[in-house]
Amino acid sequence: MKGIHQLAKHLDISIGTVSRALNDKPDVNPETRKRVLEAAEKFGYVANQSGRSLRKGTTNVVGLMVESSPESIENSDNFFSGLTGGMQAVLTQHNLDLVMLPCPTEEDPLEYLKRMVARRLVDAMIISATQRVDPRIDLLIKAKIPFVALGRSTSGGSHRWIDLDFEGVANSAVDRLVAHGHRRIAVTAPCGDVNLGHIFIEAYTSALARNGLSFDPALVIRAPSTESGGYQAASALLTIEPRPTAVILIYEMMAIGLYQRLAQAGILPGKDIAVIGFRESPRAKYLQPALTCYRLSLNDLGKELAETLLALMPNQIDAYQDHARNRIWPLELAPGESDSFRVES
Amino acid sequence: MKGIHQLAKHLDISIGTVSRALNDKPDVNPETRKRVLEAAEKFGYVANQSGRSLRKGTTNVVGLMVESSPESIENSDNFFSGLTGGMQAVLTQHNLDLVMLPCPTEEDPLEYLKRMVARRLVDAMIISATQRVDPRIDLLIKAKIPFVALGRSTSGGSHRWIDLDFEGVANSAVDRLVAHGHRRIAVTAPCGDVNLGHIFIEAYTSALARNGLSFDPALVIRAPSTESGGYQAASALLTIEPRPTAVILIYEMMAIGLYQRLAQAGILPGKDIAVIGFRESPRAKYLQPALTCYRLSLNDLGKELAETLLALMPNQIDAYQDHARNRIWPLELAPGESDSFRVES
Repeated sequence: MKGIHQLAKHLDISIGTVSRALNDKPDVNPETRKRVLEAAEKFGYVANQSGRSLRKGTTNVVGLMVESSPESIENSDNFFSGLTGGMQAVLTQHNLDLVMLPCPTEEDPLEYLKRMVARRLVDAMIISATQRVDPRIDLLIKAKIPFVALGRSTSGGSHRWIDLDFEGVANSAVDRLVAHGHRRIAVTAPCGDVNLGHIFIEAYTSALARNGLSFDPALVIRAPSTESGGYQAASALLTIEPRPTAVILIYEMMAIGLYQRLAQAGILPGKDIAVIGFRESPRAKYLQPALTCYRLSLNDLGKELAETLLALMPNQIDAYQDHARNRIWPLELAPGESDSFRVES
Repeated sequence: MKGIHQLAKHLDISIGTVSRALNDKPDVNPETRKRVLEAAEKFGYVANQSGRSLRKGTTNVVGLMVESSPESIENSDNFFSGLTGGMQAVLTQHNLDLVMLPCPTEEDPLEYLKRMVARRLVDAMIISATQRVDPRIDLLIKAKIPFVALGRSTSGGSHRWIDLDFEGVANSAVDRLVAHGHRRIAVTAPCGDVNLGHIFIEAYTSALARNGLSFDPALVIRAPSTESGGYQAASALLTIEPRPTAVILIYEMMAIGLYQRLAQAGILPGKDIAVIGFRESPRAKYLQPALTCYRLSLNDLGKELAETLLALMPNQIDAYQDHARNRIWPLELAPGESDSFRVES
């Protein structure tokens, strides 16, 4: 292993420049930085990065904690893979890398996060699947690790978060259905304590009230946020008397199973019942009739998450002060045919 | 921040036990280890893990490098999320954690891996999307980082790998189709240099020869391994004269687009053409008629990857010597209706 002196000599660059390149200082030509890092790797100088990390307390790595579960594996959702591209586009500008931290199915997310914190693997984090009460937030505040929660929470007092505009979607979906004459509008909700469930049902209730409709708990169908959960939700829907004329899904993948179960009962979305999904996804486009849902750019959301996080990181606060805020991320209506069914009054 | 002495005093445990717990030695009661790690985290002892990593050169973290691309995002495949559960089930027994290293779309995988190596983020790695010639393998050998390649390669001389049984699938699919009277059997192949493409086409060619059929390059359809790639492949298929009576897909998601394009041409899989897919996936089950394909347990494959990797890691070599080998991972036929079409001779 060579020291920094040999490295500088080999490259014919000053020790100061080599040091600045190795320490990710901004005032180094990108080409030079590349040469230095390559030579460092080539000559085994790399081992000292760990020493640097000890001295500076930084790893130059950002973590994205995701929950893996049998449901998420079955779903094979593109949500997180869609976010990483946008996050990396921003982070790589600052020589930061992104790693994904998949919390095992059987493990408590708090215990998992404690271990990740103890491992000092990352300088900063994005957490997802945020719970209404989420002790991970308290842990990260206490550990003084910059983080952004994807999803609102009642935990942690003041912390940075970005969340999807569940209120906007609920308002738009309910208004659209009411305008088509619907009065009995069912909604699906997740089984667990993930906060988006609470927020969505509250927004749905408010939107109903604004339209002069009262909330009927019988119309809230609890089901797993999966394709087969959609199948279960449709089965439940068919037993509600009188049958709802419309249903709003909180998770788009549910539409696949829901369509299937409805087809078995001889019920066609858009013709016999109105269906509105949540997020547009690559897979929804194969549904017939096309699912009315809401569109967002995962790449842009990933960028925003990274920028919001950088606004919390000591080296970057100034450059990203415009992003030092919490955000509700808008979604745009992507009309399909699944909600064409109208109720004549 | 407290030192190890204060930590031991607080817990009323010997310094030796605290040290063994912090250093992941096997001879510590799991409950005690948990208490120690919790107290260490609580009192900010965590910072010293980074010091430990410097001294021992270990991070207790294993990386799984995955490529993210517009295709993989569109596909929202469950392959890697399916592997992580099995890997973690094995790794956590040894206090090892798994992180996923997503290589950004625009970045060269070798440059990305160089940076990851320089960051000293992980003790060992799994690499995927293995190329026929893959300089990442040479890099990891030189850097002396234990690794397993998911996929065979001609690079690197002797290194550990696990690959799917492409030969077995090609043999089974060709034999099955020949038994149904097919003589013009098309096959899809990926556009890039990923080694599975080469292996699969070679195995398909051998299987044809064994059945007295000659290889016709016109029947090899190059298309992206995506849903829309399947659509393109079907379009190409329809222009081949005389039209193939059967097609074998190298990637299961392609079946979705292929079915769609064939339907537009009034051609029904299983009735007008025989279709065999590669891996069974949660999404394939929604295809009508059901896709004949091949089944494997991603969880078991994930376990095997972890065990094979442990057989290369200094602390675990002895316990995992049974796994110190390369493996061809078998797949089992999952018959559907998509290849029911027979050619009368």
